[in-house]
Amino acid sequence: MKLIRSLGQKKYRLEHGLFVVEGQKAISEFLGRRHKVHKIYVTDAFASDFGAYPVVPVTPRQLGQMSQLKNPSGALAVFGIPAPEPFLPTGWCLALDGVQDPGNLGTIIRLCDWFQIDRLLCSPNTVDCYNPKVLQATMGSLARVKVHYGPLPTFFEAWDGPVYGAFMDGAAAQRTEFGAKGMLLMGNEGQGISKEMAKWCTARVGVPQFGPPTAESLNVATATAILLHEVRRGH
Amino acid sequence: MKLIRSLGQKKYRLEHGLFVVEGQKAISEFLGRRHKVHKIYVTDAFASDFGAYPVVPVTPRQLGQMSQLKNPSGALAVFGIPAPEPFLPTGWCLALDGVQDPGNLGTIIRLCDWFQIDRLLCSPNTVDCYNPKVLQATMGSLARVKVHYGPLPTFFEAWDGPVYGAFMDGAAAQRTEFGAKGMLLMGNEGQGISKEMAKWCTARVGVPQFGPPTAESLNVATATAILLHEVRRGH
Repeated sequence: MKLIRSLGQKKYRLEHGLFVVEGQKAISEFLGRRHKVHKIYVTDAFASDFGAYPVVPVTPRQLGQMSQLKNPSGALAVFGIPAPEPFLPTGWCLALDGVQDPGNLGTIIRLCDWFQIDRLLCSPNTVDCYNPKVLQATMGSLARVKVHYGPLPTFFEAWDGPVYGAFMDGAAAQRTEFGAKGMLLMGNEGQGISKEMAKWCTARVGVPQFGPPTAESLNVATATAILLHEVRRGH
Repeated sequence: MKLIRSLGQKKYRLEHGLFVVEGQKAISEFLGRRHKVHKIYVTDAFASDFGAYPVVPVTPRQLGQMSQLKNPSGALAVFGIPAPEPFLPTGWCLALDGVQDPGNLGTIIRLCDWFQIDRLLCSPNTVDCYNPKVLQATMGSLARVKVHYGPLPTFFEAWDGPVYGAFMDGAAAQRTEFGAKGMLLMGNEGQGISKEMAKWCTARVGVPQFGPPTAESLNVATATAILLHEVRRGH
C-alpha cells in the first residue's frame, strides 16, 4: 500500500518503473496493450469487470488508502512503464517544449488520440505523463498514444520534415497548407517556445484572435486543439 | 477576513453580491469595467501596482488567510457581481447545458474573449462563473465576457437565429457554413446536450475524429475551441 501511494511521485515511479491507473474504464483501456499490468485492486462492486485478468479484492477503506483521488472509483491498477521505443520520424508528431500543467498535458494526450498523432515528444522539463493528474485528464488515451521524453534537439535532428512552431504572431493556421507529414511544436504555458527551440522551426503558425485584440493568449491545450484540427482538416 | 474567505462558496457570493479576484494582472483586467471594485488588499511588494485605486496594505500572512490559492500572489480584490443585463439576441452566442468542471468553464470564458462571442448563456446547473477555480482559469477574460445564467429555453425563445448543437455524431464543423449570427450549444461533460435542449437545435455539428475511432470523445473545452474557431474561420 505504501509502495502504491509512493507512485504519486515521479521519483518513485522512475525507481520502480510502475504507475497507477484508477477507474474501471481507464484500466480497461490499458489492458492488453503495451503496458504490462501488475495488479488490479477492486472493491466487491467491481470484482467481475476485468474478464480474464486476475483481481485482488480490497475493502473500500483499503482502496481509499491507495488512491490519489478524493473520491476513489472502486478499481485501481498498477502497470509497468514500458521501455522507451525508438523514435520513428514518420507521419505527424507533436512536440512540447516545457508544458507544466498536468491538466494541459492530459488534454493534449487526449487530443493526440483523437487526431491520430503518431508520436508525442516531450522535453525533459515537460510534466511527467504518468503523473496521476495527467492520467486523470487523459481519459485512458495514454494507453494508445506513444510518448517520448528527451532533449527536443535529438528529435529534431532525426526529423526530415517541416517543423511548425506555434507562436502568438504566427501565420494563421487556416491559411497554412499542412501536408501528410509534419511536426507541430508547442511551448510552455507562460513563456511559449524557448529561443533555443525556435531555431528549429521551419514555419511559424498561430490561431488568430477574432476582432480587436483583448484576450492575451489561448491556453496551450486549446491552441493545440485548434492547430491539430487544422493539420487534419484537409485530409 | 471571514467574509472574504466565505466568498469561496456560491451561497455567500450570492448573499453578499461579491466575488474575489486574485493576482495583480487579473485584478487590473477587472478595474474600470462593469465590475465595481470594493477593496484591494496588497502586500508591500504590490502596493504601487494599481495606480489611482486605493489599496489596503496587509501582511503576507493576512493575505494567505484570505486567499483561496495555495500560493497567494500578493494581491487580492473584492468586486461586486454586476446586476443581470437584458439578453440582446445579436451576433454569436455560446450556450452551456450543465458544464460542471470549473476549469472547463474558465477555459470556455477565455475562448469567448478570444473569439469575441457576445454572450455566454449558462443553464442554472452550470458551475458558477465567479467560482475561484473558474476565475483562475479565465486569466482575466471574465472582465470582458458577458455571462447570463437562466433556464436555456428562455434564451432560445428570445433567439431568432440558428442554434447549432454540438453532438458526437454531428455534421463535420468544417463542412458547415456558419453565418454572421448564430448560437452554439455545448453539453455537459459526461451526458452531452440533454434531450430537452436538443429539441431547440436547428443543426447538429461535431468535430470529426481522424482515422479509425479510438478515443471516446473530446473534452468540452477543446471541442468548444475547435467549433468557435470554425465559426469565426471564414469571417
